[in-house]
Amino acid sequence: MTETKILVLHGPNLNLLGRREPDIYGTRTLDDVDREIQSLAVELGIKAVSFQSNHEGVLIDRVQQAATDGTTAIIINPGGLTHTSVALRDALVGVGLPVVEVHLSNIHAREEFRHHSYIAPVAVGQICGLGSDGYLLAMRALAARTAVRA
Amino acid sequence: MTETKILVLHGPNLNLLGRREPDIYGTRTLDDVDREIQSLAVELGIKAVSFQSNHEGVLIDRVQQAATDGTTAIIINPGGLTHTSVALRDALVGVGLPVVEVHLSNIHAREEFRHHSYIAPVAVGQICGLGSDGYLLAMRALAARTAVRA
Amino acid sequence: MTETKILVLHGPNLNLLGRREPDIYGTRTLDDVDREIQSLAVELGIKAVSFQSNHEGVLIDRVQQAATDGTTAIIINPGGLTHTSVALRDALVGVGLPVVEVHLSNIHAREEFRHHSYIAPVAVGQICGLGSDGYLLAMRALAARTAVRA
Amino acid sequence: MTETKILVLHGPNLNLLGRREPDIYGTRTLDDVDREIQSLAVELGIKAVSFQSNHEGVLIDRVQQAATDGTTAIIINPGGLTHTSVALRDALVGVGLPVVEVHLSNIHAREEFRHHSYIAPVAVGQICGLGSDGYLLAMRALAARTAVRA
Amino acid sequence: MTETKILVLHGPNLNLLGRREPDIYGTRTLDDVDREIQSLAVELGIKAVSFQSNHEGVLIDRVQQAATDGTTAIIINPGGLTHTSVALRDALVGVGLPVVEVHLSNIHAREEFRHHSYIAPVAVGQICGLGSDGYLLAMRALAARTAVRA
Amino acid sequence: MTETKILVLHGPNLNLLGRREPDIYGTRTLDDVDREIQSLAVELGIKAVSFQSNHEGVLIDRVQQAATDGTTAIIINPGGLTHTSVALRDALVGVGLPVVEVHLSNIHAREEFRHHSYIAPVAVGQICGLGSDGYLLAMRALAARTAVRA
Amino acid sequence: MTETKILVLHGPNLNLLGRREPDIYGTRTLDDVDREIQSLAVELGIKAVSFQSNHEGVLIDRVQQAATDGTTAIIINPGGLTHTSVALRDALVGVGLPVVEVHLSNIHAREEFRHHSYIAPVAVGQICGLGSDGYLLAMRALAARTAVRA
Amino acid sequence: MTETKILVLHGPNLNLLGRREPDIYGTRTLDDVDREIQSLAVELGIKAVSFQSNHEGVLIDRVQQAATDGTTAIIINPGGLTHTSVALRDALVGVGLPVVEVHLSNIHAREEFRHHSYIAPVAVGQICGLGSDGYLLAMRALAARTAVRA
Amino acid sequence: MTETKILVLHGPNLNLLGRREPDIYGTRTLDDVDREIQSLAVELGIKAVSFQSNHEGVLIDRVQQAATDGTTAIIINPGGLTHTSVALRDALVGVGLPVVEVHLSNIHAREEFRHHSYIAPVAVGQICGLGSDGYLLAMRALAARTAVRA
Amino acid sequence: MTETKILVLHGPNLNLLGRREPDIYGTRTLDDVDREIQSLAVELGIKAVSFQSNHEGVLIDRVQQAATDGTTAIIINPGGLTHTSVALRDALVGVGLPVVEVHLSNIHAREEFRHHSYIAPVAVGQICGLGSDGYLLAMRALAARTAVRA
Amino acid sequence: MTETKILVLHGPNLNLLGRREPDIYGTRTLDDVDREIQSLAVELGIKAVSFQSNHEGVLIDRVQQAATDGTTAIIINPGGLTHTSVALRDALVGVGLPVVEVHLSNIHAREEFRHHSYIAPVAVGQICGLGSDGYLLAMRALAARTAVRA
Amino acid sequence: MTETKILVLHGPNLNLLGRREPDIYGTRTLDDVDREIQSLAVELGIKAVSFQSNHEGVLIDRVQQAATDGTTAIIINPGGLTHTSVALRDALVGVGLPVVEVHLSNIHAREEFRHHSYIAPVAVGQICGLGSDGYLLAMRALAARTAVRA
Repeated sequence: MTETKILVLHGPNLNLLGRREPDIYGTRTLDDVDREIQSLAVELGIKAVSFQSNHEGVLIDRVQQAATDGTTAIIINPGGLTHTSVALRDALVGVGLPVVEVHLSNIHAREEFRHHSYIAPVAVGQICGLGSDGYLLAMRALAARTAVRA
Repeated sequence: MTETKILVLHGPNLNLLGRREPDIYGTRTLDDVDREIQSLAVELGIKAVSFQSNHEGVLIDRVQQAATDGTTAIIINPGGLTHTSVALRDALVGVGLPVVEVHLSNIHAREEFRHHSYIAPVAVGQICGLGSDGYLLAMRALAARTAVRA
Repeated sequence: MTETKILVLHGPNLNLLGRREPDIYGTRTLDDVDREIQSLAVELGIKAVSFQSNHEGVLIDRVQQAATDGTTAIIINPGGLTHTSVALRDALVGVGLPVVEVHLSNIHAREEFRHHSYIAPVAVGQICGLGSDGYLLAMRALAARTAVRA
Repeated sequence: MTETKILVLHGPNLNLLGRREPDIYGTRTLDDVDREIQSLAVELGIKAVSFQSNHEGVLIDRVQQAATDGTTAIIINPGGLTHTSVALRDALVGVGLPVVEVHLSNIHAREEFRHHSYIAPVAVGQICGLGSDGYLLAMRALAARTAVRA
Repeated sequence: MTETKILVLHGPNLNLLGRREPDIYGTRTLDDVDREIQSLAVELGIKAVSFQSNHEGVLIDRVQQAATDGTTAIIINPGGLTHTSVALRDALVGVGLPVVEVHLSNIHAREEFRHHSYIAPVAVGQICGLGSDGYLLAMRALAARTAVRA
Repeated sequence: MTETKILVLHGPNLNLLGRREPDIYGTRTLDDVDREIQSLAVELGIKAVSFQSNHEGVLIDRVQQAATDGTTAIIINPGGLTHTSVALRDALVGVGLPVVEVHLSNIHAREEFRHHSYIAPVAVGQICGLGSDGYLLAMRALAARTAVRA
Repeated sequence: MTETKILVLHGPNLNLLGRREPDIYGTRTLDDVDREIQSLAVELGIKAVSFQSNHEGVLIDRVQQAATDGTTAIIINPGGLTHTSVALRDALVGVGLPVVEVHLSNIHAREEFRHHSYIAPVAVGQICGLGSDGYLLAMRALAARTAVRA
Repeated sequence: MTETKILVLHGPNLNLLGRREPDIYGTRTLDDVDREIQSLAVELGIKAVSFQSNHEGVLIDRVQQAATDGTTAIIINPGGLTHTSVALRDALVGVGLPVVEVHLSNIHAREEFRHHSYIAPVAVGQICGLGSDGYLLAMRALAARTAVRA
Repeated sequence: MTETKILVLHGPNLNLLGRREPDIYGTRTLDDVDREIQSLAVELGIKAVSFQSNHEGVLIDRVQQAATDGTTAIIINPGGLTHTSVALRDALVGVGLPVVEVHLSNIHAREEFRHHSYIAPVAVGQICGLGSDGYLLAMRALAARTAVRA
Repeated sequence: MTETKILVLHGPNLNLLGRREPDIYGTRTLDDVDREIQSLAVELGIKAVSFQSNHEGVLIDRVQQAATDGTTAIIINPGGLTHTSVALRDALVGVGLPVVEVHLSNIHAREEFRHHSYIAPVAVGQICGLGSDGYLLAMRALAARTAVRA
Repeated sequence: MTETKILVLHGPNLNLLGRREPDIYGTRTLDDVDREIQSLAVELGIKAVSFQSNHEGVLIDRVQQAATDGTTAIIINPGGLTHTSVALRDALVGVGLPVVEVHLSNIHAREEFRHHSYIAPVAVGQICGLGSDGYLLAMRALAARTAVRA
Repeated sequence: MTETKILVLHGPNLNLLGRREPDIYGTRTLDDVDREIQSLAVELGIKAVSFQSNHEGVLIDRVQQAATDGTTAIIINPGGLTHTSVALRDALVGVGLPVVEVHLSNIHAREEFRHHSYIAPVAVGQICGLGSDGYLLAMRALAARTAVRA
């Protein structure tokens, strides 16, 4: 049985988490979030690796690497690239792993241009508006999928 | 401290769950799902009440009732009404409780008209594409919100 | 000379009036409003019957009944159905009575989707943004029409 | 060989047939039409059951019932719901029976919003503009399909 | 207590009232209408001043003058400028008085371009389709608002 | 009493019928269909003349000829011209005969550009998705219309 | 028999004619054009009156005056108001005289926003792209209409 | 000096002129119109050749022939092809002669799809709504252009 | 060497400056702004003339006058006409002087309809959101252009 | 092994090649191009047949003929029909042969309406902007495909 | 009192300045522009730091760094990212500093897709079309803001 | 005579070639493709340099470098950036070399958002749907252009 190993990708500006616009994005920093991710990984008996970049190209490189490093699923918060990056979408399709898209804020309650996601149509599902809990819920969902299949 | 009591609303055609289009909606019946909801409610130490109807008006009546029966949050899968019912949206806004919208399938990967939700902009958040696990994740998210506030 | 008898239809969520979102909809309850309607009816020497439902189908049934119960005009606040119900529009056209559409709030100053009404093009006119006075003004307008014709 | 049993669904306002807007909808009442349907059913050696409601939810319930009561095909004139009801569409897809959509008037020659049907893309076909004959033609078409398969 | 003083503005082509297109605009002339306005003003114990111009600029000047001449509310039928004049809208916002928009005909039942109003979103409300009674209803509505506040 | 004489027009590519894309268009050839048309014409006691062309201009010429050769109604399957030919529409309007539009496949379930027809708004009605039976149903409908009038 | 009297209205910026942008508008001045109009009026045995203004309101006033000063038809080059003035359109409809719209340049070959005219749908016809000859052709067309009717 | 020779092209359905829809297209037949064209040609001292076809391809062939048969200008009423034929536009551009587009009816006052012309942007100008006089006016305009240049 | 003489045009409602909506438009009055303009003109050694009107026609007249009164450049804040006046645009193009468009507020951060300007595409450039400093910056930019050319 | 036989179809106005608009379409005539096609056919050891028509119907007939005359692939430059002909698209789909679409000019750098092709979505691929070399490149591509399969 | 320190960000392709497309972007190189920026900074008694990159990610990193290095305002010419980068917008919002957007060319007079800016709605203001002077004007505007506040 | 030197740019995810989605992109790896490119370069007597990156900024840097390293033409497959990168387009325009755009798959037969290319309007031409042969065909086209010019 393959071990579950989840890559958690944080897109542009998520490194600012907790320091800016706390009314929208909450007060926990990205380090706080990553620690919660690790705790839950232990609880669920799976592996989780976090990675953040403000560079579309670096994120694409990292997605491609997942095809060969044992990653079994991807959780991605693409930040602003959600609405603009066909290249990131193509990378996710290219590696063929199940993807869950997470947004801290409720993108459907914000500006019109945030309502459309290039990533969502090629993801398994999307969680938004539930703050950094969204990552944890996505982990549970992916762990459950694996459990059923295993 | 107020007890957490979640109303789980299943909209039109969700009573068909498990019997029809299992490739899209999975094989668990609505009863199976409701049992899982009850199990998790026990685990989380909260109350959960499920209700299904194919009638917009009946769902609106039920939402309104939640304003006065001790309900503290609503999880709703509005089915096809997601994309067409302003009246249901108005009811949810009217009762003023936190709402999480759940869809079994990934609505962003289906027909164009399913990409827009009248409910999402007035909800706390949305979970889609994760099957009936979506309900359970929504319960966890709402329970966490309450815990933090309590 | 036929007696003037006006059916005043209140659509979905208007039963919440006065209890919710008073900044948008005012503080008078639906009962308060209906009492004012009765007072003005007496003043104008006409009959007025109020009816509220959250169910599109029930409202359509009620509209159809107006064709044979002596109703001479309809005042309707279709609530959220304003923007979504072709069936309600068809019922109003079907019974062939003069209709005045009323909205408590100024729908043209709210969300984009509230700017379009399926009812308005088949109504005599529309009054919006003037609170529950809108019903009373509509009664005066319909009474004046009848007076001129009588 | 399974007996052919057709459910003929009449949506909102079709109970007004023959009494209102005869220039658009003709002078035959719904009872007249249902009698013609029964006559043709006898002629074709099949069963036909008619049902009318102004309530979306009641129509959905009735569609769902068809999945288990021996119905082999559905003829539906969804009235105004044609253009607005995703939930009715979902119900028709859910029961998986062949559907023929009928409109008395030529919806393509009327208001812009009547040109689009949520039902048509999930139906076998559509007949419009041929008055109440549309129902009879739909019955012949469905009977012919069954004959070929039998 | 401030005296209620209403400025009634008639936009382009309203001076033709009663002489042209009586099927759409009725047979009363603008003078007839203004006399009815004065009668009702007396009845309501308020002041009303009427003003008509075919010039956008003159209407804007008149709106601006209302800021300093004791006017407490504006009723405006902007005629064709309804759909095209941002400058008139800006003037109304600029003087900060409550505005009720009136249209003699039902603009929602006419050409598509008449469905949108630049004025409505900055007005308290809109009355349309009720002929010259619209002005009188608007006066009653504004008088009622003042009464409540006084 | 005028004899009923129906012109059945088959547009571009319908001569390929039965040989290509049988999953969409069925296995009967155009000759098979025309034979069925003749059989039904005999049964209904009317005349039917079939004509096919891949040329818009030739179809227009043939439509115009119908104005003077005793044709009393037209059944047309305009093929791809349905969505692109204003000139064919103008010809049909020009000759002033009742027209029924037929499509073998359900155009509403295919590509977006097939959902709009230039012909439908000037036709009596439209039948689609019922295969070559559509022609026969159209003949019955036209025969019934004539019978009522005769 | 009524004498033919044509009002020729030149809208904003036409007083610049001949002095600016001769590649688009030609080298004849407005005075030159008006002289040609007078010459042709003599030749055709009709009356013609020219009027230019840069003010929408002044043009509307002038159109309204035509209703009572014996004018039998209007030729109008509305300049930039073509694309923006509903009020000018309403004035033209209000006076009920036949209108021919003239443009010196080919508005269909210029910026997208010049392709739509608010005036054209209420005019008898439109002539564009033929320089100042357009006015003369419009005069001939209107004279011919009168001749036929006289 | 080159002799002026104008090709007058009549598109699809113009051969029906005078026989059909006289309320829109007038009562003169195409032969009547062509005789008027010849009379005016004599008066203006130019040559005019008329040609009608219902076939786009035949019209394109005829346009191309104009490049080498001494034609100096083209007047075209493309009928329904106005709104749909890029190929006809390309032919007109290809031969490089001045083109005036003529429509008998006011296309801007008819269906939305008739407001756009593929021909107009490559023509010198457009005349519409002035009946068959439009052809004569176009001839005068083209003759005047030649006169100035000669 | 020609003297630099700048016409500074203030459109509708700018005479309200400083008195209304100071949160959007600042607290300086138009007189304050014009004094700053004069001071900077002295500093830059150029001439500046200010002019305000609420009338589109008056502004067009003033623009046209600039063609012959020695004006070398125009700074214009067209107010609400920015988004609606093709005639004002045509006037600016007609006089052929360099134009800089100024807006006190950031029009790109306000209502959707304020994002489009008819003036901008024919201007040299646009400055917005910098309050009344925008006029001064535009003067500097135009002075610099002249200096380079002189 | 089947012999490769390519049908090269030239649509409307391509017979003008080399004589008109050489800046867009180059100076080689259609005969020159067809000779180059024959030369390359010899070099590649395949057969090529060229055919040009200005008639949509003739092109459709020719495409249909390809289904039974041994043609193995089609290269088509549909000219202006690219953007308007669903019937030609249907013919190409109907015969089921691989199609490569060629355009001499870069259609993506020309008018907006040339950016969409009805043919491209049913073709193997598209080559544009490379002049008449496009045909030769398409031949090489089709020959390579055949070689791999053989 | 805090020292004013402005970060001047040059986006993709601005390093080509002066070498390419001088008709659009002028002949000064980026070094020339940066020198002028330094000169004006000295004149205004403020600090200015220039930075250029062709990489969206590098620009985002640099914006984020401004939150903690004493920067008090940002001037940004986002180049092509103006129209496509939500991530860059989010970074600017994230750091919370006042931003002025600068474009060398008049983006409103170029291709349609350049008319929309993701940056403008979150900036204080925008300057475009005034060449590299735009940077200097932006500096003056920001210095003035600071002066007023200090 | 200048030596032909072609830069072949492979955008994001093309490094995955041959390993992923072989049904869309074929089974040859990027190395295979680059070897074929080198072989053909030798055959054609030209130079070719291949470069791949997943980073928009790196691709822009590489394009800019081509302006000064002797490159005479660019072949680019921009991958997902085709549809989203104005900055890459600006870089290609900035260096002023002829560009041919290549896509392995037929972008016109895929998702709607892939039908538009920011690159195509500034390229010489586009080849799509012909797999990795597209690169080779582009090389031939560019070599032919050079040969003609030399």
